[in-house]
Amino acid sequence: MLVTTDFTLEDVHFRRSWHPAAAVGHRCLARGLSDIAAMGGVPLAAFLSLALPLDLPQSWVDGFLAGFLRLARRFRMPLAGGDTGQSPDGIVADIVVLGSVPRGKAISRAGACVGDDIYVTGSLGSGLAVLEQLRAGAAPVQRDLRNGRLTAAERKHFYPAPRVAVGNWLRQRGWASAMIDISDGLSTELAHLCEESRVGAWIARAAVPVAPGATFDQALHGGDEYELLFTAPKASHGRIPDRIAGVPLRWIGTINRGPGVWLLGPDMKSRQELQAQGWEHFGESAPVRHRGHAAPRGAE
Amino acid sequence: MLVTTDFTLEDVHFRRSWHPAAAVGHRCLARGLSDIAAMGGVPLAAFLSLALPLDLPQSWVDGFLAGFLRLARRFRMPLAGGDTGQSPDGIVADIVVLGSVPRGKAISRAGACVGDDIYVTGSLGSGLAVLEQLRAGAAPVQRDLRNGRLTAAERKHFYPAPRVAVGNWLRQRGWASAMIDISDGLSTELAHLCEESRVGAWIARAAVPVAPGATFDQALHGGDEYELLFTAPKASHGRIPDRIAGVPLRWIGTINRGPGVWLLGPDMKSRQELQAQGWEHFGESAPVRHRGHAAPRGAE
Repeated sequence: MLVTTDFTLEDVHFRRSWHPAAAVGHRCLARGLSDIAAMGGVPLAAFLSLALPLDLPQSWVDGFLAGFLRLARRFRMPLAGGDTGQSPDGIVADIVVLGSVPRGKAISRAGACVGDDIYVTGSLGSGLAVLEQLRAGAAPVQRDLRNGRLTAAERKHFYPAPRVAVGNWLRQRGWASAMIDISDGLSTELAHLCEESRVGAWIARAAVPVAPGATFDQALHGGDEYELLFTAPKASHGRIPDRIAGVPLRWIGTINRGPGVWLLGPDMKSRQELQAQGWEHFGESAPVRHRGHAAPRGAE
Repeated sequence: MLVTTDFTLEDVHFRRSWHPAAAVGHRCLARGLSDIAAMGGVPLAAFLSLALPLDLPQSWVDGFLAGFLRLARRFRMPLAGGDTGQSPDGIVADIVVLGSVPRGKAISRAGACVGDDIYVTGSLGSGLAVLEQLRAGAAPVQRDLRNGRLTAAERKHFYPAPRVAVGNWLRQRGWASAMIDISDGLSTELAHLCEESRVGAWIARAAVPVAPGATFDQALHGGDEYELLFTAPKASHGRIPDRIAGVPLRWIGTINRGPGVWLLGPDMKSRQELQAQGWEHFGESAPVRHRGHAAPRGAE
């Protein structure tokens, strides 16, 4: 059994004026699904706890649930329970996703070995790019995914696709020695993975897949990405395809003894140490650490 | 597998000026354990999500966790994960408890049949009695369970004991046809149980176990009790003991065809319909419905 739990807090993970209710519901569930994906698990059921302010319009709740349930249906996953309550201030959602993985086969963050290749799925940076557009005063997206008027970057920000199929594909073949999702940005998550695996890494600046419309820095440090970062052991060398389940995979670097994570310039010689710059939430205050955490345990 | 999820919201489920941090942590976990108990399950692991205001003293968090972990230890249950975040206003905790029960043996709210006996564990009303004392200006309890200076009623309010052993005992013998915990008050929970079982009930006024210091109305309608309400089929008739695992059991009435739940006077003739009066939260505003919900599902 896998269990993940993730908060979605108003003005921390979303803003009501920026994010349509359906996108908030979608992203809420996507957070949990992405954690399951990163362990190579199959999602089984979701449990949603919602604390809402008294004055919240029913239409907001309907929109939230529509976005939530649409994503749940895509993974044939029931909303199996939850709790509701009244919040004194701001919307609070807590999503629990239950998943399964064959005993002993869950992919952890701690399995990377020296010499392993480092890969990421998809492309990075659009989460932060869209956020910065919203901050700069871009018109909020109050339209629906289905009307098709979203740009690719907006679709990724508002309705991200958790990489469950990729996680399962890698787990079935045993080709991921360690995996994590990029909820707090590539630089931060790679540092986590290296720390838990007690290794270092270098990544090639030119290999990092930057999303259209995003900058390199946004790709390196932007959070809220729902892409997977994984390491592949030597056995898989040259056998990782360009694409799994329609999602591009990109080699970006190699695990070494460490310490530290280094960014190699285009000449593959100049190098600078990569500082984990975390993920700045929407709040005005200091960045908040909000690591969703999931623990596998044996079904009894 | 059983999964329960329950919010603990500041000024809804507790007040910082009334409840010591350790009691808030204890009650947070007790809510989840009580749901597992009501299904006859064995608790396996807890997952705690905590959103905290920036200005909350670390000592409060330490106290909360001390109370939480002390109760977890009592059930040999690990805190296996969770999430943290910053709350714009007020403490928000969401507790997930994972439990197990043999396949098909979870006790639901829907199994009560005409002729079944109705029982409750322990005694009722102290939760609301203590709350009304606090409302009336009683000195808040800022002392610890272990110093032994709490009254029995205070101990029940601040450090309730989830009835896991009773739930398991009943499940192992197959002697509970339906069960629910009394988080929202006897009148409300009995109405839920009858509704989901499509039956009615009568209960004997004289049989309702009123806690010392509480009134009959507090016993009938007060929530936050963490006692179990269950129905026992004819097969168990006369075989339900007075006490299971040290917890007194009291017969209080009988399931009938319905409709409605009726309260029988001391002469066992005069009767009045029992209105579900729900559970009034600590907030000043309208009572909030906060049904924790748990769903059994097969481990895969």
